[in-house]
Amino acid sequence: MRFSIKTNGFNDIIDITDRVSKAVKESKVKDGICLISCPGSTCGITTIEYESGLIEDLKKALEIVAPMNENYEHCKKWGDCNGFSHVRSALLKPFLAVPIEDGELVLGAWQNLVFLDFDNRPRNREIIVKVIKSSSD
Amino acid sequence: MRFSIKTNGFNDIIDITDRVSKAVKESKVKDGICLISCPGSTCGITTIEYESGLIEDLKKALEIVAPMNENYEHCKKWGDCNGFSHVRSALLKPFLAVPIEDGELVLGAWQNLVFLDFDNRPRNREIIVKVIKSSSD
Amino acid sequence: MRFSIKTNGFNDIIDITDRVSKAVKESKVKDGICLISCPGSTCGITTIEYESGLIEDLKKALEIVAPMNENYEHCKKWGDCNGFSHVRSALLKPFLAVPIEDGELVLGAWQNLVFLDFDNRPRNREIIVKVIKSSSD
Repeated sequence: MRFSIKTNGFNDIIDITDRVSKAVKESKVKDGICLISCPGSTCGITTIEYESGLIEDLKKALEIVAPMNENYEHCKKWGDCNGFSHVRSALLKPFLAVPIEDGELVLGAWQNLVFLDFDNRPRNREIIVKVIKSSSD
Repeated sequence: MRFSIKTNGFNDIIDITDRVSKAVKESKVKDGICLISCPGSTCGITTIEYESGLIEDLKKALEIVAPMNENYEHCKKWGDCNGFSHVRSALLKPFLAVPIEDGELVLGAWQNLVFLDFDNRPRNREIIVKVIKSSSD
Repeated sequence: MRFSIKTNGFNDIIDITDRVSKAVKESKVKDGICLISCPGSTCGITTIEYESGLIEDLKKALEIVAPMNENYEHCKKWGDCNGFSHVRSALLKPFLAVPIEDGELVLGAWQNLVFLDFDNRPRNREIIVKVIKSSSD
């Protein structure tokens, strides 16, 4: 299963919990795991409480490790000045495996699935949702 | 399968290798993968050599990216001053998939499974262990 | 399935895409997930565009969070001065789950699977590739 999203790039953080949950329900798998991923080298997937304050706080932390400037070898070598996007993606990884029980993703009450687009331009992204039954399903 | 742990919060780092290994043995799966997770937005799961020096070293690294102070939008907006807990969790993620062979987790000799509680208070946490058979089991 | 690689340590970053893809083809699984891991506490696995500029950029980011010096409790306590190697491994994790469709890893055009050896000496490493069929295979 897969679905598409449009992003604004520049660390746009998008809540994908509902779309992934829908895909899990459609799979009819009651117990197992769900792998959420995106085939791209400038994006990430994780969980966070989806609240505008924390979204800013997360961006600030990423700015410490891989600041959004042009001081990257990738930019110097290729004139492609999204070095920070690639580095953030390598650190955060666009892959996340989440358990399924009773046909639902097992997440905390305040824990949302988010897609992060680190690229330096708007993008259309394909999110892949792969569902695997556990031995006891 | 699941088990509970009590934590002290404030980056308490707890070795959960034995409890996860026990769950894997009880599943009787000989070859496959084990997904360890916790439904929460202020915690993480990873591996490290469980030795008090390294535990301090890891905390120091997390302090660089998401320092334990009140300078977070989450705190300013909601008066909930565990912004660092949420940001650390989004970066480290409370999900980890580990291979199983011969009925055992495949880990290095010095590689322990650890749960990290980033919250700013003691917590009771539920750890979920989901076991999936590989095609060749 | 598993394969061996020789590394130079000191953040040697090695492209393992072809070897993992070969293992996936040999498994004959058409649809599912592939867990790539390494049993070690001083290494990591992620994806990045494998290009020498970005490889340097990623190393620079890791240097911010866990600098390669001897100022680690692990070094002070045990005289084992690869504290940065352990901390980088705990943050990046030597585990990655990637989806499989049509018998192939689902990765972006510029997205390579890489193994990172953070240790402070050359190493021989064993990479474990575990393939799991999805419910719809």
